Amino acid sequence: MLRLYDYGESGNGYKVRMLLCRLGLAFEWVELDILQGQTRTPAFLAKNLNGRIPVLRLEDGTHLAESNAILWYLADGTPWLPDDRLARAQVLQWMFFEQYSHEPNIAVARFWHHLPAMSPSQRAQLPEKMDKGHAALAVMDQHLAKTPYFVGDRASIADLALYGYTHVAAEGGFDLAAYPAIRTWLDRISADPAHVAITDTVGAVAPNAA
Amino acid sequence: MLRLYDYGESGNGYKVRMLLCRLGLAFEWVELDILQGQTRTPAFLAKNLNGRIPVLRLEDGTHLAESNAILWYLADGTPWLPDDRLARAQVLQWMFFEQYSHEPNIAVARFWHHLPAMSPSQRAQLPEKMDKGHAALAVMDQHLAKTPYFVGDRASIADLALYGYTHVAAEGGFDLAAYPAIRTWLDRISADPAHVAITDTVGAVAPNAA
Repeated sequence: MLRLYDYGESGNGYKVRMLLCRLGLAFEWVELDILQGQTRTPAFLAKNLNGRIPVLRLEDGTHLAESNAILWYLADGTPWLPDDRLARAQVLQWMFFEQYSHEPNIAVARFWHHLPAMSPSQRAQLPEKMDKGHAALAVMDQHLAKTPYFVGDRASIADLALYGYTHVAAEGGFDLAAYPAIRTWLDRISADPAHVAITDTVGAVAPNAA
Repeated sequence: MLRLYDYGESGNGYKVRMLLCRLGLAFEWVELDILQGQTRTPAFLAKNLNGRIPVLRLEDGTHLAESNAILWYLADGTPWLPDDRLARAQVLQWMFFEQYSHEPNIAVARFWHHLPAMSPSQRAQLPEKMDKGHAALAVMDQHLAKTPYFVGDRASIADLALYGYTHVAAEGGFDLAAYPAIRTWLDRISADPAHVAITDTVGAVAPNAA
């Protein structure tokens, strides 16, 4: 069975959970506490040298890291990834936008707000994170004002990748009131009958989680 | 003809130049001065809402952004991208690693070193960039100690994506002496007969670059 190493509050892990549930794939779920160093143990570094969740263990025992690479692997051959060469590259364009221009600002600001207290360095960097996060949201809003989904005429993994942290952007201090196209799109994505919330318990608890 | 909007010193643009030359594809080259705001003009934002180079204009006029998405588009169907589903996902794993854990530290430190003077904020953030950059280099070195290329038994776009800024890491203050597997791999990649340097003039100057 597939096994997902994850952290409940992680939007990157949540992307994968969203797709697994939409595809109806059974999986074991192992939560690691990133705040307690559980992704930096020798056992976990043997799964992902970069020491980050999510990691998906495939049926053959291979471990695959990076949330958007996992999404690609799972979606390939399903309606969640288009067949057309250009459309596939455009899905990647938005997923790289997500990891470079969106997540490092919006997810990181949210993470810092979740901490018991920000460090002086984090507090000093926060205004820049807010500016860059709003710039990313503005790019999304301008695009979504013209098209219902990021690529093509149905939802793809580009939408799930961007939904992950956009729908909890307020937890990082980002008010989405100024982004009407994003708010309509969030409702469109969450209307999927197989949609799960980031707080939902999904997957089966793994019996041997080492 | 393909047209690449680029900036000469950009490792992200260089990745695309490397692949275009290896594939023997003719292209027009348009350099934009990112320091003078030439990627934030209305004309350029119409090509990429996110206001960043590289952007590849395809034969049909479509503009594709994000260096690694462009690499994927160009490599699809060539030996630079494996056919196997898992291997393709592993190529993406390393390309997302590059954009999340490598480029924001190594490329950004290099960019700051190229500026006439760092701002106080940049100077304050530099130690963290150095730590995280070395962590990324250590991950690469450990992986390359076991395998000649990032994925499979020949070079792929994962190698080109990581070559882009690794080979100029010293310009960001990163000494590669401690990473012997990386140094051997850099030589392996640059030994390709179609290899070009980041400073090489490649492509034809576009007659109408607007």
